[in-house]
Amino acid sequence: MRASLRLKKNEERRLKQGHLWVYSNEVDTQQTPLKQFEPGQIVQIEADNGKPLGIGYVNPNTLICARLLSRDVKLDFNLKFLKKRVQEAQALRELVFDQPYYRLVFGEGDGLPGLVIDRFGDVFSVQITTAGMEAVKEDVVQLLENLYHPQAIVFKNDTPSRELEGLPRYEEVVYGSLPETLTIEENGTRFQIPVEGGQKTGWFYDHRQSRAMLQSWVKGKRVLDVFSYLGGWGLAAATAGAAEVTCVDASEAALDGVEANARLNGVDSILTTIQGNAFDVLNALKLEAHKFDVIIVDPPAFIKRKKDFKQGFEAYRRVNELALRLLEKDGIMVSASCSHHLGRDQLLQAVQSAARHVDRRVQLFAQGHQAADHPVHPAIPESEYIKTLFFKSGPSW
Amino acid sequence: MRASLRLKKNEERRLKQGHLWVYSNEVDTQQTPLKQFEPGQIVQIEADNGKPLGIGYVNPNTLICARLLSRDVKLDFNLKFLKKRVQEAQALRELVFDQPYYRLVFGEGDGLPGLVIDRFGDVFSVQITTAGMEAVKEDVVQLLENLYHPQAIVFKNDTPSRELEGLPRYEEVVYGSLPETLTIEENGTRFQIPVEGGQKTGWFYDHRQSRAMLQSWVKGKRVLDVFSYLGGWGLAAATAGAAEVTCVDASEAALDGVEANARLNGVDSILTTIQGNAFDVLNALKLEAHKFDVIIVDPPAFIKRKKDFKQGFEAYRRVNELALRLLEKDGIMVSASCSHHLGRDQLLQAVQSAARHVDRRVQLFAQGHQAADHPVHPAIPESEYIKTLFFKSGPSW
Repeated sequence: MRASLRLKKNEERRLKQGHLWVYSNEVDTQQTPLKQFEPGQIVQIEADNGKPLGIGYVNPNTLICARLLSRDVKLDFNLKFLKKRVQEAQALRELVFDQPYYRLVFGEGDGLPGLVIDRFGDVFSVQITTAGMEAVKEDVVQLLENLYHPQAIVFKNDTPSRELEGLPRYEEVVYGSLPETLTIEENGTRFQIPVEGGQKTGWFYDHRQSRAMLQSWVKGKRVLDVFSYLGGWGLAAATAGAAEVTCVDASEAALDGVEANARLNGVDSILTTIQGNAFDVLNALKLEAHKFDVIIVDPPAFIKRKKDFKQGFEAYRRVNELALRLLEKDGIMVSASCSHHLGRDQLLQAVQSAARHVDRRVQLFAQGHQAADHPVHPAIPESEYIKTLFFKSGPSW
Repeated sequence: MRASLRLKKNEERRLKQGHLWVYSNEVDTQQTPLKQFEPGQIVQIEADNGKPLGIGYVNPNTLICARLLSRDVKLDFNLKFLKKRVQEAQALRELVFDQPYYRLVFGEGDGLPGLVIDRFGDVFSVQITTAGMEAVKEDVVQLLENLYHPQAIVFKNDTPSRELEGLPRYEEVVYGSLPETLTIEENGTRFQIPVEGGQKTGWFYDHRQSRAMLQSWVKGKRVLDVFSYLGGWGLAAATAGAAEVTCVDASEAALDGVEANARLNGVDSILTTIQGNAFDVLNALKLEAHKFDVIIVDPPAFIKRKKDFKQGFEAYRRVNELALRLLEKDGIMVSASCSHHLGRDQLLQAVQSAARHVDRRVQLFAQGHQAADHPVHPAIPESEYIKTLFFKSGPSW
């Protein structure tokens, strides 16, 4: 017999609109005290009148205390359940991508809260962020074995948010063995990626469609890729015919990766790397009177929490201003943000403010979103985080 | 000596942030009574302390009583001025498009408030919406002659908003003569378009990039194009390998155009048209148990004025719901809006609400924006109006 999680009056509305989260203050703790549940326990979520809303998993210790898994209370959360959801997720990827390099599962966006799986051909990089999903991690491994006969499955369970869920942080190859080098392809460009020790799951597929857009506009151009990581933008430009590409990153290891990837694509002769703090490097390039035709500014999230907004906004404004100072008058500026807390209109405002400050105009001529393997759940605004703005610059009007 | 338009204290801020509009309540009418100006008169716009902000044109009779043309007060608003702005606009188009079919000038987005020019090869369709731009209409014609040696220039000055500016509504061929049929190309698809008598300037280039996206996902599919006009979406799907395409529009003339365009592209054997009110047609198709794999819902603006929001939102919700009822469980739904007053998040909400109502899930896997020949002015939210959402449908989670 499955335990019930009873909501307070009217607190079922968000779920009815399609959302998957229950906040702890929405629970009728008189009827169903949260303390009675184990982290990860499966419950039947009910409206205040006892009407079942679906099944979900609970964590009594977190602000989001339950996540809905299905509106069908007859289902169990098991291998069969996971299989159906993963196959649906795969169908969406296969609609859009013709090679097995993609984010296979994007948490809530694919109806699998707390689970992210990146696919690098036969290697799967899995990230679990909730106790409820951790409870079925053996099933996740089993499923990937059954469906894909993989070369390796690695758990990249090292995100700080796991601690809030009461979960240990670890990185572990749980199936097979990782190849020495792992190569993926994105927009006709090959990348060797470090699954072990790399950032997040090892690669950021989320900008792939925006990078494809960039490729149309870089032929013969001098391109600057700021916060390059392994060169996702810069190498896309290089293979699309850019004249010169400069990648800037704080991490020496990332830039070693850029250089290896440049060789892999036969574009190392036109590629330069600069190691350092982006703000410092942009200032130094300005002092040396460098100019670029295309500049990409794709920083890590400057606004991780809502309360960082003001400071983070100013960081976006400032780094875009530094970049604009290096941009040819009629150049192209690509400005991206992965901060969920920075709206698209706010990023636009940051760049416009920067442009006014350096007496430039910018025209927004194209926009990018997180790629199709990061589907947005329409009822969960938090599932959308990437915004990319493409500007043509010019003299002030 | 140029007249001054003096703003009240602190009312220069919006202009300083890059905006181009002055509202009548921001003018210091003690110092510079609006009534002293002729509609279309060029003025120097000044802050309350007399500091010049730029030149602009005035209309004393409209809510937006002045539009900034340049921050450089030494400039004159003449043929030379127009030439520079139009050439900059052309440079942006040539960056993105390889054929001479595009919106050449998009008003404020190209620094030319009140002027829209669509280019159909050697034919130019011009729309002027302000008295200030009307004052230089001879220069506009002269400029197009000089730059493009066109076959024809037609003024489509028939928008209702001209009446607010005190301008007559008319449609007139002012240079050369219009060919009997005019053919353009978009995403590898050819379209005959009716410049005379057609909607707006005759063609809507604004969805071209979203239509290109659609083309990737329609091979072998049954496609329904609701509010088709001349078949912009439906024919893009047909030429990209759709199995069957059905176009629905209220206008018999538009559907004649769809059929002519289907023949032009050799896809008439797979194309059907249905004339009628979209809501009625969708209901009728449901009664006949029709199903489609891909449905595009791209209605005319249901929310023309802010006060129409509630009713308009409901219309968006309802038409998307009717469409979802016709969509295969795992189909693709493309939902667009050109209402500036409906935000992207609100369109998303309308579709999500519709999906919940029919017990479906929708995943937002791609998003489109107005094409690069409709550049957004970052300081003028009103210059952005198109949103396109691509959903994968599925059973409810």
